Amino acid sequence: MLPNSYEPYDLITMGRIGVDLYPLRAGVPLARVDAFGKFLGGSAANVAVAAARLGRRTAVITRTGTDPFGDYLHEALREFGVDDRWVTGVADLPTPVTFCEIFPPDDFPLYFYRQPKAPDLELRAQELDLDAIHSARIFWMTGTGLCEEPSRSATLAALEARGADGMGDAGGVTVFDLDWRPMFWKNAASKNADPGEARSYYAEALRHATVAVGNLDECEIATGEREPYAAARALLAAGVELAVVKQGPKGVLAIHRDGTTAEAPPVPVEVLNGLGAGDAFGGALCHGLLAGWDLEQTMRYANAAGAIVASRLACSSAMPRPAEIEHVLAGGPVPAQEPTS
Amino acid sequence: MLPNSYEPYDLITMGRIGVDLYPLRAGVPLARVDAFGKFLGGSAANVAVAAARLGRRTAVITRTGTDPFGDYLHEALREFGVDDRWVTGVADLPTPVTFCEIFPPDDFPLYFYRQPKAPDLELRAQELDLDAIHSARIFWMTGTGLCEEPSRSATLAALEARGADGMGDAGGVTVFDLDWRPMFWKNAASKNADPGEARSYYAEALRHATVAVGNLDECEIATGEREPYAAARALLAAGVELAVVKQGPKGVLAIHRDGTTAEAPPVPVEVLNGLGAGDAFGGALCHGLLAGWDLEQTMRYANAAGAIVASRLACSSAMPRPAEIEHVLAGGPVPAQEPTS
Repeated sequence: MLPNSYEPYDLITMGRIGVDLYPLRAGVPLARVDAFGKFLGGSAANVAVAAARLGRRTAVITRTGTDPFGDYLHEALREFGVDDRWVTGVADLPTPVTFCEIFPPDDFPLYFYRQPKAPDLELRAQELDLDAIHSARIFWMTGTGLCEEPSRSATLAALEARGADGMGDAGGVTVFDLDWRPMFWKNAASKNADPGEARSYYAEALRHATVAVGNLDECEIATGEREPYAAARALLAAGVELAVVKQGPKGVLAIHRDGTTAEAPPVPVEVLNGLGAGDAFGGALCHGLLAGWDLEQTMRYANAAGAIVASRLACSSAMPRPAEIEHVLAGGPVPAQEPTS
Repeated sequence: MLPNSYEPYDLITMGRIGVDLYPLRAGVPLARVDAFGKFLGGSAANVAVAAARLGRRTAVITRTGTDPFGDYLHEALREFGVDDRWVTGVADLPTPVTFCEIFPPDDFPLYFYRQPKAPDLELRAQELDLDAIHSARIFWMTGTGLCEEPSRSATLAALEARGADGMGDAGGVTVFDLDWRPMFWKNAASKNADPGEARSYYAEALRHATVAVGNLDECEIATGEREPYAAARALLAAGVELAVVKQGPKGVLAIHRDGTTAEAPPVPVEVLNGLGAGDAFGGALCHGLLAGWDLEQTMRYANAAGAIVASRLACSSAMPRPAEIEHVLAGGPVPAQEPTS
């Protein structure tokens, strides 16, 4: 049972959170950046924010350090309308910070400070509210959550709680964001990521998920395939009902188990910072699935949301509102960043 | 022999370097800071910058990550006129970043990201240019350099290179900046610093140094004494010729082995950010020692340099030029930050 609330969440995400420090100017190497802006970041947090901006009741399951940046992440989640009740502190681990460089249109290197371990990888199965996870209309987890224990077991326990069909209560959706970040999978012995190790855990998670979302690199890690149709079919064969393959400038391919296929072209946009666009896409995908839209409409909507964030410097605070997405879908120009978050 | 240079350095420092990320506004908790400025930081680097601003020929011995922030630190040192020839890269360790909160007049918490290990603690004895260290007019090392291997052995090897009397070539000075940062001495078993462990290494370093500089906390770690005169006498007994005890708002006490004593009152100043003031003091102390000034003049000059930096937001880029210090010593108001670094 949920304290103070018997209404299931529209969306519960589980995974990464941190502080993003982004250059306040684009096109400048890190060495020349004088000033950085501070933003809520981490893909699980960003997806929850994106769905909250679209009016959805969301919560995130994650952990921070017990430090001022941890306090900030709680404050930021609440300001964005994301429930932070399952965001707990880990003593002795600093809240992660991530720097990026912004070289439009397609180069956005990230520099993670998540050592010796990110608090979000300290999620533990026995501390999860499995009833809430079971009853959420959508549960969203990520590949990074599988990279290390105890987060891996906790993530798999949460998937178990969604039931054999991955639907939680009848009709629910379980999304696996394939989110492949090789630097988090470094094998201590070799200092290199082991995609084979990752693939076995990805396969286990795919058996519990109803939707898989990933770009071509991520699909290849999960399935061994990187041709979009082959990758989508492999994801369906691995257990999901809906495979969503993001092809960057080539748009999105979605194939449902029932044979329905949607190919959504990209929304033309002048990219300023591509980071966060995938999370905007994910939040909007959840919105469409919750609304019961058809596949084509859902993909077009999610694509537009991603394009809007790509055209803006920030990630979490750049997540669009419904009117902005509808404006773009109606053929209007991508709206400029709103003056306030 | 020094390649490209047979002139000894006025000052070689050895120790910490990193990127400081400071709030662009004071009085704001970290959670509410929107934007951070980026600065060269780390006390060994800052002391070298401070002395370079005063016209001294300086170099720093330290290490960075092999990443864009490491590139930045090289560029910044060169722009400040500090020789970076002994700043080397460590693969697989990120360049450290440090955040601070600025609550004037006396609360400036630091948040270090130096995990799993700071590159500057990977300094190795066999990679040192011991001839250059021997012949430097002043060699400056810090307590933090003793906190972990291989930096500890490297720091002690550098001290050995200064000779039995700590004077390198005749008349040289070896400064031990007592710099006590308990978070860097965490015992892996207890997660607490062990001052007893630190004290034995401090005692070894004091036997090789000719000057010791520290605040009351640092003097207590080094000697067990925190009453200023007792601490100064204990430092002299431990082997140095000159003990400099910084008492914050009570000014500075300096006692030479020959009995000369100087007590310099603080320069009245509206403190904006106290961080870096000690490094400004250190760079100016070196300048006075190199100039052969008497103890009273040297302490007054170093105090004024510290006060100027305390009145400014930044650290390295706020280090004063001689005219600014002379202006303050002549009774003028503390000059505002220069428009350019």
